[in-house]
Amino acid sequence: MECYLDNSATTKPCSEAVDAAMDALTNRWGNPSSLHSVGDSANDLLTECRKTAAKHLKASPDEVIFTGCGTDSNNLAIFGAVRALKRRGNRIITTDIEHPSVELPMQRLEEDGFEVVRLPVDKDGRISVTDLKNAVNKKTILISIMYVNNEVGSIQPIKAARAAVTKAASPALIHCDCVQAFGKLPVVPRQMGADLVSASGHKIHGPKGVGLLYVKKGIRILPYLLGGGQERGLRSGTEAMPNIAGFAAAMDAVGDLDQNYSHVKTLRDSLVEQLLAQNPETSVVINSGEDALPYVLNFSAPGIPSEVMRNFLSERGVYVSTGSACSKGHRSRVLEEMKIPPERIDSAVRVSFSRFNTQEEVDYTAQCVSDAIATLRKH
Amino acid sequence: MECYLDNSATTKPCSEAVDAAMDALTNRWGNPSSLHSVGDSANDLLTECRKTAAKHLKASPDEVIFTGCGTDSNNLAIFGAVRALKRRGNRIITTDIEHPSVELPMQRLEEDGFEVVRLPVDKDGRISVTDLKNAVNKKTILISIMYVNNEVGSIQPIKAARAAVTKAASPALIHCDCVQAFGKLPVVPRQMGADLVSASGHKIHGPKGVGLLYVKKGIRILPYLLGGGQERGLRSGTEAMPNIAGFAAAMDAVGDLDQNYSHVKTLRDSLVEQLLAQNPETSVVINSGEDALPYVLNFSAPGIPSEVMRNFLSERGVYVSTGSACSKGHRSRVLEEMKIPPERIDSAVRVSFSRFNTQEEVDYTAQCVSDAIATLRKH
Repeated sequence: MECYLDNSATTKPCSEAVDAAMDALTNRWGNPSSLHSVGDSANDLLTECRKTAAKHLKASPDEVIFTGCGTDSNNLAIFGAVRALKRRGNRIITTDIEHPSVELPMQRLEEDGFEVVRLPVDKDGRISVTDLKNAVNKKTILISIMYVNNEVGSIQPIKAARAAVTKAASPALIHCDCVQAFGKLPVVPRQMGADLVSASGHKIHGPKGVGLLYVKKGIRILPYLLGGGQERGLRSGTEAMPNIAGFAAAMDAVGDLDQNYSHVKTLRDSLVEQLLAQNPETSVVINSGEDALPYVLNFSAPGIPSEVMRNFLSERGVYVSTGSACSKGHRSRVLEEMKIPPERIDSAVRVSFSRFNTQEEVDYTAQCVSDAIATLRKH
Repeated sequence: MECYLDNSATTKPCSEAVDAAMDALTNRWGNPSSLHSVGDSANDLLTECRKTAAKHLKASPDEVIFTGCGTDSNNLAIFGAVRALKRRGNRIITTDIEHPSVELPMQRLEEDGFEVVRLPVDKDGRISVTDLKNAVNKKTILISIMYVNNEVGSIQPIKAARAAVTKAASPALIHCDCVQAFGKLPVVPRQMGADLVSASGHKIHGPKGVGLLYVKKGIRILPYLLGGGQERGLRSGTEAMPNIAGFAAAMDAVGDLDQNYSHVKTLRDSLVEQLLAQNPETSVVINSGEDALPYVLNFSAPGIPSEVMRNFLSERGVYVSTGSACSKGHRSRVLEEMKIPPERIDSAVRVSFSRFNTQEEVDYTAQCVSDAIATLRKH
């Protein structure tokens, strides 16, 4: 049996996405900027895809900028906002547990003289609304907070950012990295109070090589990748049409968010229940908070190093990760910031679900993990 | 009959590229950073693609960085080199006829206080080796010169850059935008004396959404898109595997460069000959220089506005461009810098070939252009 439970790293493209990418590759392969019928056909496809994305974000099509990936979206949002607003202030607010595509831009901005305030998280990986309110001031130009954490699934109180900005009379733009949330929770930038929202294709069963940035109407950011002026000048480079078409098809294929959520929550709850029931007390510890998004479950089997567990499972066709795919080889900063003890961090495993996973897969996975604990703890 | 003669804007993905992209989408869809067998399979594919690219560049695989597009490659090369060398000097050399993905980064660097020297071009769109030598000094940190111009096909004396750098004892890195050259002329960075070389997938019958940057071993540039540390930390973001696989397959499918060159030169020469023979003297003027790469032919039919000619041809199934696809709506800066008179610029048309074009297509195109001249000049 094969159980792919590493859906926060990447997902298998769904048939709808594959078909759409294929059509763009073979039939509608023109350059959307070309002013002849081959270009027009590609440009029409681009327009359709933008409308699709806007529909899912409950936004307007001209608020959707297609990019090369989630990282590209996050870099554009952060550097683009800071460059546009640098005359208004020097202070940026983010959190201690952002994805590297937010954290590394922050480090570069620090090198360049900006003050970056990183909000701490509690044991469940959540920032405090009070901390956020206290951090924002009149010189704050950007707040960048992820909606759902990629390693533990914690959900941040993103709406509090707008209230904090209003209270402080701050010029700050609010960016929300929704790469792990999009297609799982409703991502409606206007309801969230976000000016800038990132999402990625390959996390929702679309192709790798495409992301999007929602840029609220009236908001001015400067472009980061500079060139031919595609995407309203905000993201130059010939549009990656097969990927964009696949991404849009994948959005439509997601279906009912609530139904998917219930399905995945049942799977997550069942896995937790089985892991705790099948193993000696304290041999499995859940690291994700109870309120975390059920699509991500982080747990530890103390005493069994993460990579040993991962390999044991991989040999049995169960694919999970240790930390995120983007930080191979490093101890998880997210778990450290959650003040999880080292022995639990070193044995942490992330299971991440998709709507396509099944109860049968969960039962098999629970059994394999329990086998690992029984086998590997003996030694 | 349909004649796609806008191959410098984009090309139709070849069957090899489509098949490879499809395989990556459906079979080898893992995240190359994931440390389980699904990830390994994707990572193996990435390694194979990198070897393929290295083979075509006569380089080492670890000198190949995959990016999101040619624009991404050019931005990384320019900003990455300047950030790495900014303590060594303030001067940058480029030309007056670069692609916007080079020119716009240069403008931003000027905003940030760097001195950018743009070398002028002659009537054929070529810079002077003497000008280049005179421009480089000890404070020069970057030279960025395109190999083949996208609008007229002029070929720059790129090897002269290395000699200029050596003579001036300059710390400058040499970047060569080879987006229009790769797959048409031999692009061998070491022979060209280039430290950084950009190429793009969709100009060589690969997919849109992928480019590469050759970074010579031992050369240090800083990353531009920051995040998970993919591509040796130089280009973060989950690798766009379907595009990368398609790009590598497209490189292998190019076949014999000399044979393709002869074929395309025959087509170009035939088109020029027919256009000049079929029309009244002075009604067709060739803007590309005689030594230009035959893949690009820029000509004017003075008195017939470019867009009128383009639409006339498009209605007959002949797809050409006015200027480049990346600068729709603007008068060509390249032709202006070549000191071509305004009435010729306003009637300029670019025909760009691929190895797949045929003599029959050229004959039909010549006839359609001649019909346009006969019809539209009457009015």
